Amino acid sequence: MKYPKIPLAQTVIQLCKTKELKHIVISPGSRNAPLTIGFSNDAYFNCYSIVDERCAAFFALGIAQKLKKPVAVVCTSGSALLNYYPAVAEAFYSDIPLIVLSADRPKHLIGIGDGQTINQRYVFENHILFSANLKLDLKDEMNIPGHEELPIFKNLEDKFERFLGLQKDIQTYNEEGINTAINTAISKKGPVHINIPFDEPLYELVDKISVSPRNIDSTVKPSKIEDYVLQSALEDWNSASKKMILVGVLGPSEFEKKWLDELAEDDSVIVLTETTSNLHHSNFFPSIDQLIAPLTDEEQKALSPDILVTFGGLIVSKKIKQLLRKHKPKHHWHIDEKAANDTFFCLNNHFEIAPNIFFETFLPRITHYVKSRYKETWLALKQYRLKRHKAYVNNIPFSDFKVFSEILKSVPEHYILQSGNSSAIRYMQLFKVKKDIEVYCNRGTSGIDGSTSTAIGCAVASEKPVLFITGDLSFFYDSNAFWNNYIPSHFRVIVVNNQGGGIFRILPGQKNTENFDTYFETSHSLTAEHICNMYGLNYESVSNETDLAKALNLFYTSSNSPKVLEVFTPRTLNDKILLEYFEFIR
Amino acid sequence: MKYPKIPLAQTVIQLCKTKELKHIVISPGSRNAPLTIGFSNDAYFNCYSIVDERCAAFFALGIAQKLKKPVAVVCTSGSALLNYYPAVAEAFYSDIPLIVLSADRPKHLIGIGDGQTINQRYVFENHILFSANLKLDLKDEMNIPGHEELPIFKNLEDKFERFLGLQKDIQTYNEEGINTAINTAISKKGPVHINIPFDEPLYELVDKISVSPRNIDSTVKPSKIEDYVLQSALEDWNSASKKMILVGVLGPSEFEKKWLDELAEDDSVIVLTETTSNLHHSNFFPSIDQLIAPLTDEEQKALSPDILVTFGGLIVSKKIKQLLRKHKPKHHWHIDEKAANDTFFCLNNHFEIAPNIFFETFLPRITHYVKSRYKETWLALKQYRLKRHKAYVNNIPFSDFKVFSEILKSVPEHYILQSGNSSAIRYMQLFKVKKDIEVYCNRGTSGIDGSTSTAIGCAVASEKPVLFITGDLSFFYDSNAFWNNYIPSHFRVIVVNNQGGGIFRILPGQKNTENFDTYFETSHSLTAEHICNMYGLNYESVSNETDLAKALNLFYTSSNSPKVLEVFTPRTLNDKILLEYFEFIR
Repeated sequence: MKYPKIPLAQTVIQLCKTKELKHIVISPGSRNAPLTIGFSNDAYFNCYSIVDERCAAFFALGIAQKLKKPVAVVCTSGSALLNYYPAVAEAFYSDIPLIVLSADRPKHLIGIGDGQTINQRYVFENHILFSANLKLDLKDEMNIPGHEELPIFKNLEDKFERFLGLQKDIQTYNEEGINTAINTAISKKGPVHINIPFDEPLYELVDKISVSPRNIDSTVKPSKIEDYVLQSALEDWNSASKKMILVGVLGPSEFEKKWLDELAEDDSVIVLTETTSNLHHSNFFPSIDQLIAPLTDEEQKALSPDILVTFGGLIVSKKIKQLLRKHKPKHHWHIDEKAANDTFFCLNNHFEIAPNIFFETFLPRITHYVKSRYKETWLALKQYRLKRHKAYVNNIPFSDFKVFSEILKSVPEHYILQSGNSSAIRYMQLFKVKKDIEVYCNRGTSGIDGSTSTAIGCAVASEKPVLFITGDLSFFYDSNAFWNNYIPSHFRVIVVNNQGGGIFRILPGQKNTENFDTYFETSHSLTAEHICNMYGLNYESVSNETDLAKALNLFYTSSNSPKVLEVFTPRTLNDKILLEYFEFIR
Repeated sequence: MKYPKIPLAQTVIQLCKTKELKHIVISPGSRNAPLTIGFSNDAYFNCYSIVDERCAAFFALGIAQKLKKPVAVVCTSGSALLNYYPAVAEAFYSDIPLIVLSADRPKHLIGIGDGQTINQRYVFENHILFSANLKLDLKDEMNIPGHEELPIFKNLEDKFERFLGLQKDIQTYNEEGINTAINTAISKKGPVHINIPFDEPLYELVDKISVSPRNIDSTVKPSKIEDYVLQSALEDWNSASKKMILVGVLGPSEFEKKWLDELAEDDSVIVLTETTSNLHHSNFFPSIDQLIAPLTDEEQKALSPDILVTFGGLIVSKKIKQLLRKHKPKHHWHIDEKAANDTFFCLNNHFEIAPNIFFETFLPRITHYVKSRYKETWLALKQYRLKRHKAYVNNIPFSDFKVFSEILKSVPEHYILQSGNSSAIRYMQLFKVKKDIEVYCNRGTSGIDGSTSTAIGCAVASEKPVLFITGDLSFFYDSNAFWNNYIPSHFRVIVVNNQGGGIFRILPGQKNTENFDTYFETSHSLTAEHICNMYGLNYESVSNETDLAKALNLFYTSSNSPKVLEVFTPRTLNDKILLEYFEFIR
């Protein structure tokens, strides 16, 4: 086997291997050649080559999100690195372990006008868990230009133990940096940045590794709840007659459902879930907006809880945020090992513990079942809304609303569903998603910038087929996602093309002016067809209910290439149908 | 006329107008609605709507680069902003005034789990001249959730003058921030970031402006050289017999050529220019690599200068950097108002003054013309190389080399040439570019990430037609550039498609292995045709010399749509032809 000659490259690669970082997404470049050579020559690693770094990072994110394991992205020096930023921020807010390995010039070649050179150190400072800035060698650290030619250093190397000691310190420093970075990504779940200076020559190979970097294991302090904290919480719990459990983004099977199943039997407890919570039970309350959007202020007040317990990632529903901010519960507990957002401005208890462990400890100690009509009231509301929902959907013309209803009915149970942001995920929240379907969406920053690449990453990392549902703007934004040689043939995309940013029509702006069309809705007449032709994807388009039904009927059958179904919906009708929906189900 | 109701939005917009910021590139969003409404309703501004923020920022950069005036980009909160970063870094290193206006949530809604919310403040810290973090109001600054409902603040507002004073201070603080940011972008030439928090409601309009923000003029200290510094420099100059003037990136007509014309007559002075210097004279030395690449170390030493004078932006030629680093001149002077890179590790004089003023002051005081054969030697070398160059190019088969030769001969004199990075600009350096053609290339970070968008921005800002020459990877990387409704029909693109990152074949890696093809060259079989179909561009492709000549013959004639000419060259032959060129011209 061949290895890059540069010891620092060997060190990075060996530690990635020790820590079982298997998936490496590489973007082309010269400065990163030592890493590219090392990773791609070692059969341990699954390497992927993606040119556009923005897509590369989201693709890696999709793999990491699915596997719940760290994935590395490798890029050359310069602006390449900056294109990772949208995905780094998404990883930061979605708790996904993404390891950025950026090649850099030696320190003495930075800031002197060399090409493809920027200030890479700490460049993600606002959205990164840890930055390791590796060092080339002592001479470079002392920032001496053309140092390799200076005889004084040759002498030093020969003569002074001290110098060699310092040189060795740099290897130790680098090993510690790499260890801490990868350990942090894993234990704290999020992005880390390892910046790695390389000097020329970059392409030399050797037959044997010259380093044996030390692996430092991550020290995880076991988390537990203090008994007095638990006791106090139990007292509040036992005396409250209106308790709401609100679940944010959760990976499939991340949480042991049995605890919530138990709670679903309690008359004083309601469990609100989102499409992205990946939790299902007939007594749970999905489709939050459907339930609460039509409520008057008084009704909201009556339905608001005394105790709110939250866990999981960010909440999609704006309506529930508004409701809980307005009618603040007396207690808001958030359960999460890492952090707690004060989303409703009333957080008063952060249990720094995994939700599974919390419920495992907490539930058996509940002694008192309060008599309550809380759940009953919510269940009645749910029944009513579902009836109205059904009546509405049966009577509306072809539109975004209708399309999402039909699509979600069509998805086979063994699929993974990846959703685009903006309208796509908001519509999806209004419909039933079959319980075995795993759902993912980039809700960390809720950007439209990398959803397709993320979905493709997920598809590559998964044995199950993936269906990606997206709006048109998000689809075109990330069209480079398809510049990817790894897309499995069972990958499926549905583009709901309403010819612009349909979500803006729902917001309170002044519709149907030229300025609105141009700067808010950004209406267009693009189709996905050319992109499909370009990248060899099967393409079909429909624009009415009959054709949609026919197309969906065959859409999930196996094929030699991934399939894209583009559904054209009436741009100026969609908003009306959605807004009237909330009136109708009242 | 309608204005956004929010005073902070009015303040930003009014100050942009006062400071003559005419071009505003807007990406769709809701949080930035107050700015979008304000800019787009005011006929003073030329507004553009571009969805992909990465493209939007490079498009704005292209306008600013061409006009040498600040251009603003406007985006919503969240990851949208991060997509500006590649262009922000390019602006930072290319001294282009780019004003980033990012809408943000109020402070009390940041870091609590709301959607599309990141840590926007100081996010570009590594590559920005100034960041103004505007404030919403005192209550938000005190970070009080749901503050608007708290009666205590209402009371305060009624009762205490002090409170109103503080509130007024915030308006003053914001006005100063905006003034400083825009003034800095103009005077220091580079990117600045103004982060602007807005609270809901965002879409309300009013008929009258409620603010009259104070315009603070930029104070520019007049720059001059101290006489004793000039005297000392003159002494060195007068006694040196080998002087090299090396010009980096310069905008067309940015520099008064008459000074260099004068110097071109001096036997001890040689003027080296690059394609991006936009300076021409029969005694100058363009095509630096052609001249020096074949030199032996000894020849290099003999041709290296005693005094090196540089001005302009970054240098493209790696060979001249290597030569001057190895054979360091005794003196390196850099002339620039803003900064001086120690590119060759021997900078010993930074004249902080505009090059025009420097030469205007310096040249008349030169008293002594040293007898020297320096220029003569270089001129003889130039003649020889040009002869060999001609012989070589007449005898090679169809290839990248041949294609660039033909293209550059074909470009009409009244065109602006925008070049992609990597191979494109390096090839271009080897050929004559007609003297009236203006040349631009993003050499700040030398990224392949936004060249097309930049070229389109330039085309929009210019009355002359623009030809953009690009490699295939760069073209596909920035394919969203064409998602743009403002491309003039006389815009022309030539894609030299060598089916991958051709430049990697020239680098010293191990060619023709599977790993090389995949991770370095990233070979592909994509064509530009589908993108052209998608965005309604005229498309033609050629793959031999005869067809290329025919196509070029008609390529610059007027048309209803922009035209793209794709030239397919033989992937595995190109590197051989380039490497043999440097042998042949020896």
